[in-house]
Amino acid sequence: MRRYSSVPFADVTITGGFWSERLDTVLRTTIPSQHAQLEKYNVLESLKLPQPVPPLTFKPHANGFSTQIFWDSDVGKWIEAASYALSHRRDPVIEAQIEAITDDLEKAQEPDGYVNCWYLEREPQNRWTNLRDNHELYNLGHLLEGAVAYMRATGRDRLMKVMERAFDHVATVFGTRPGQKRGYCGHPEVELALIKAWHATGQRKYLDLASYFVDERGRQPHYFDIERDARGEPAGKYGQGTYEYSQSHLPVREQTKVVGHAVRAFYLYTAMADLAAEHDDAALRRTCETLWQDVTSTRMYVTGGFGPSERNEGFTEDYDLPNDTAYAETCASVAMVFWAARMLNLDLDGQYADLLELALYNNALAGLSREGDTYFYDNKLESDGSHRRWDWHPCPCCTMNVARLVASIGGYVFGLAKDEVAIHLYGGAKADLPVAGGTVRIAETSNYPWEGTIRVAVDPDAARRFTLSLRIPSWCAGARARVNGADVPVTPERGYLRLTRDWMPGDVVELDLPMPPQRLWAHPEVKADVGRVALRRGPLVFCFEGQDQDAPLHRLRLPRDAALHAEFRGDMLGGISVIRAEGSAVTEPSPALYRTAPPAEAHSPLLAVPYYIWCNRGPNPMQVWMRE
Amino acid sequence: MRRYSSVPFADVTITGGFWSERLDTVLRTTIPSQHAQLEKYNVLESLKLPQPVPPLTFKPHANGFSTQIFWDSDVGKWIEAASYALSHRRDPVIEAQIEAITDDLEKAQEPDGYVNCWYLEREPQNRWTNLRDNHELYNLGHLLEGAVAYMRATGRDRLMKVMERAFDHVATVFGTRPGQKRGYCGHPEVELALIKAWHATGQRKYLDLASYFVDERGRQPHYFDIERDARGEPAGKYGQGTYEYSQSHLPVREQTKVVGHAVRAFYLYTAMADLAAEHDDAALRRTCETLWQDVTSTRMYVTGGFGPSERNEGFTEDYDLPNDTAYAETCASVAMVFWAARMLNLDLDGQYADLLELALYNNALAGLSREGDTYFYDNKLESDGSHRRWDWHPCPCCTMNVARLVASIGGYVFGLAKDEVAIHLYGGAKADLPVAGGTVRIAETSNYPWEGTIRVAVDPDAARRFTLSLRIPSWCAGARARVNGADVPVTPERGYLRLTRDWMPGDVVELDLPMPPQRLWAHPEVKADVGRVALRRGPLVFCFEGQDQDAPLHRLRLPRDAALHAEFRGDMLGGISVIRAEGSAVTEPSPALYRTAPPAEAHSPLLAVPYYIWCNRGPNPMQVWMRE
Repeated sequence: MRRYSSVPFADVTITGGFWSERLDTVLRTTIPSQHAQLEKYNVLESLKLPQPVPPLTFKPHANGFSTQIFWDSDVGKWIEAASYALSHRRDPVIEAQIEAITDDLEKAQEPDGYVNCWYLEREPQNRWTNLRDNHELYNLGHLLEGAVAYMRATGRDRLMKVMERAFDHVATVFGTRPGQKRGYCGHPEVELALIKAWHATGQRKYLDLASYFVDERGRQPHYFDIERDARGEPAGKYGQGTYEYSQSHLPVREQTKVVGHAVRAFYLYTAMADLAAEHDDAALRRTCETLWQDVTSTRMYVTGGFGPSERNEGFTEDYDLPNDTAYAETCASVAMVFWAARMLNLDLDGQYADLLELALYNNALAGLSREGDTYFYDNKLESDGSHRRWDWHPCPCCTMNVARLVASIGGYVFGLAKDEVAIHLYGGAKADLPVAGGTVRIAETSNYPWEGTIRVAVDPDAARRFTLSLRIPSWCAGARARVNGADVPVTPERGYLRLTRDWMPGDVVELDLPMPPQRLWAHPEVKADVGRVALRRGPLVFCFEGQDQDAPLHRLRLPRDAALHAEFRGDMLGGISVIRAEGSAVTEPSPALYRTAPPAEAHSPLLAVPYYIWCNRGPNPMQVWMRE
Repeated sequence: MRRYSSVPFADVTITGGFWSERLDTVLRTTIPSQHAQLEKYNVLESLKLPQPVPPLTFKPHANGFSTQIFWDSDVGKWIEAASYALSHRRDPVIEAQIEAITDDLEKAQEPDGYVNCWYLEREPQNRWTNLRDNHELYNLGHLLEGAVAYMRATGRDRLMKVMERAFDHVATVFGTRPGQKRGYCGHPEVELALIKAWHATGQRKYLDLASYFVDERGRQPHYFDIERDARGEPAGKYGQGTYEYSQSHLPVREQTKVVGHAVRAFYLYTAMADLAAEHDDAALRRTCETLWQDVTSTRMYVTGGFGPSERNEGFTEDYDLPNDTAYAETCASVAMVFWAARMLNLDLDGQYADLLELALYNNALAGLSREGDTYFYDNKLESDGSHRRWDWHPCPCCTMNVARLVASIGGYVFGLAKDEVAIHLYGGAKADLPVAGGTVRIAETSNYPWEGTIRVAVDPDAARRFTLSLRIPSWCAGARARVNGADVPVTPERGYLRLTRDWMPGDVVELDLPMPPQRLWAHPEVKADVGRVALRRGPLVFCFEGQDQDAPLHRLRLPRDAALHAEFRGDMLGGISVIRAEGSAVTEPSPALYRTAPPAEAHSPLLAVPYYIWCNRGPNPMQVWMRE
């Protein structure tokens, strides 16, 4: 049984601070500019059927694959991000845009409920013939997430009805009954979307379909083999070579290593964690815990990035975490936030919230520029200055993914059980929560992540006994807490300070989380990081940008005994904390290429900025891991 | 005017020691096994014309280019290497093989003298239409080098006559006279071959043709543009993008940076240095010196490797010297030996001999396995164990290049002027040299490069006054010398101890070159080497192979204050010197991927072996640059 549930984004108000500013940028800049890009690159036009089939906007890959095959998903993700925005501030322009898209989808939908604009336009005879590669269910999943979000934000269900017809059709095509295809999508996504639909509608058919897709995955005979043979395709032709790519190499409960395409992996694990809770499925939960343990102990960047390799957009070997060629896709960290949130619902364990926070504040957030209209797809931990943000991409998945994450940030702040409210994230947020048979208004205020002083106002509608669980991050030593001004001992249970008492209107909890700058070192099997150190303060990992140093990055080192000084700089990048230290730089006393005289060093001040904000001042070398 | 000349390989006897052993391997294993490979891969069959055109043996590159277009050059290089071998030991089997090749070439040659087995077989209508890419003159150059070497080794000139007819034809096609093509080869090589022919035959037409090719290169209007337009090819289609690739971006005397394909560069500079001497051409000599200064100060690996990039098999930016992706083609270091030898003839300066020795003993020699039948094409300075030797290659240029270098090693030992003998390389060698109007037998014996004690017996046919110039390598401090047992002061002039006296039969010079192990550091702009140290002893650069250490290479470091101990190990790899030191290894006290506890270290002994011998004990991680 589910122990905790998330609080829907629409029920949480972001009231100030760090996320309020990011959210503002997404509302004001990102959502409208993304709609304009979808228009400019013909994505919205592609929804209008029938029409003469236009040529492809982007050249297909060398292998013939076109990223336009998942344009429907980009539309779905934009609707989702825009709907989260609407829950913060209604906007008739955005609502009219979503309604127009709904018109197109309604018109495009076949009488049997099928809808996929690529297939309907370009190859209607081929629908449901290549689930391995062609994203039909993935596209529907994203549209469904968009429809659910739009319904939650506005109450309008016309798009949701299009989706219901589509999934009623899907449920006739796929399943274990005679005559049905025992298929599932090569790119997991629809599973977690269906669970959202189940939560939003209470209609069990969505949950059943999600369960079927997860349970069927990786079984033998393998559906992707059957499908391939039906297409008459030779077995050796599969470019990825292994079904690990799509986590369909084994039935999900037999999987123990995090492999393949990182986004696919985490979308799948998100649904698995959800289903483990829904069905009280201990085996599925154990699988999730095993996979969590695997990825966090061997396959994760210090910035909360995942998937080192561009080749498969995913995982390789244990401890293979190169910095300059890191892929660490923005979407993968967004997906990690989803998975971590579901793990937190299964089990209130700070390790999940710690990683949720790490991925969110670092690798995921780095994907969006400060202005909110340029993006990183891959998030390197070291750059010679050639890695740049782009304003659009033939595969624009990351743009809308980071937008929908930021716009729905409120949904990750609280966890709710019958007699308990857990606070996972700190910042400025408030919500009226159903706890212990009544309603409790929780309002937290803080200057997090710049400062660790947090105030939580607890306002039950009447005196009520429940547990307020405050996350004590694993990066924090020496946390202190006061209730109504009186010290309470801080003895966290697995990362949460659990305060159980009769709460009264007007109660106030104050939390003090010291956040001195810290050094981090990697496991010595991470070859790229041996002899190097990274810096962290609170939830933020820092990096060194070339323009902030007096010497080229490769000449610098941060000696182990150099003191680290944190400092808030209101004049930099809209106000950020930086870390300063006295470093050393190799000097150049001779022009000789090789010499027998040992290199000399001179003092050189170092300045580190939060990783998420890098590359917002033009092209610039950067590194997270500094030589010691 | 030429100041010094080399002594032809056939006139020098290798009498023992390091090179004797390598030479033996090449004679006994490499030459016969290469002939077998040329047979196996249809290279020899391709000389037999006419015949039904067989399919390609190797798949062409994605761009349509086939490496088979330069198979003639592989045959020429094999003849050359085999001929050097014959000068050490006549062999009727090898001689019959060369005669059979000569038969084929004689039959293939057109009445006008043209010979190129690819073109004659596959596209006779296209001869001389794409000098930029298709290696016609390069192929002829290698066949000419083979013919010259075979004539020098055996006195037989039938192959040389085929070549003379071919080049008489070339001289009618190319030149500045009306109706001639003002072309030259995209891959320089023929120029240095023609100068060899001039030296071997005294026929000035060879020198004139070489001079024309060098002088014409890079002039405007650009021949490769003219030729491309004649083919009707669009200007943007050239894969390399720039004529820097073939050092034809500027007239040669205006070139100041070493750019493009490394082997092409050094073959060209070899001919330029030769011509500077032949024509007493000060401008050309200054160009050579400028290019030498450029490459040695910014674009050279510590192992004497050149060209960091696989993309253009050549040069990129100053100080761009990555270790794990180093290209450092074996052929490029072989070509550097050629160039350095020519620079030494222009000017007896130890910097040329130092680099000749460095490239020879390290990057070039690493290209050939200890057994003599497997090869490196590219010579990385760091490997995770995946870099392996191969037994053949679709482009087998390096195999025969390293074979011909080792087989002709005698040709690099001495330099000769009217009243001077210079010794550039130490080892076991002897020669009867024409000096000061008579003949002097010079016999050097030593256990070089393992030990630095050298004995030179000087035996003039009668008392004669001349200068014996002994190289004092730049890596050596504290050299001592004795003549007939009496100490002489060692005050080298630009790298050579010049002993001028009346030499008598039976005179003996003893030289003692101390060779303690040394640390080397790179210029701090070489990013890959910052914080790292390399080891050298005498002419040998060392490396660390994984199997010789107690901990994985990436965990190790060599502290700056650790003593270095050299030791001869008769039990390892047939007998080599190694360097031992007390290193440190990062330990693994916790399984955590990231931790706030600084890494601990434990003592770990380090053992380094000469770079040239690495990867002779199976797949194995390796690195030259060790963390400090």
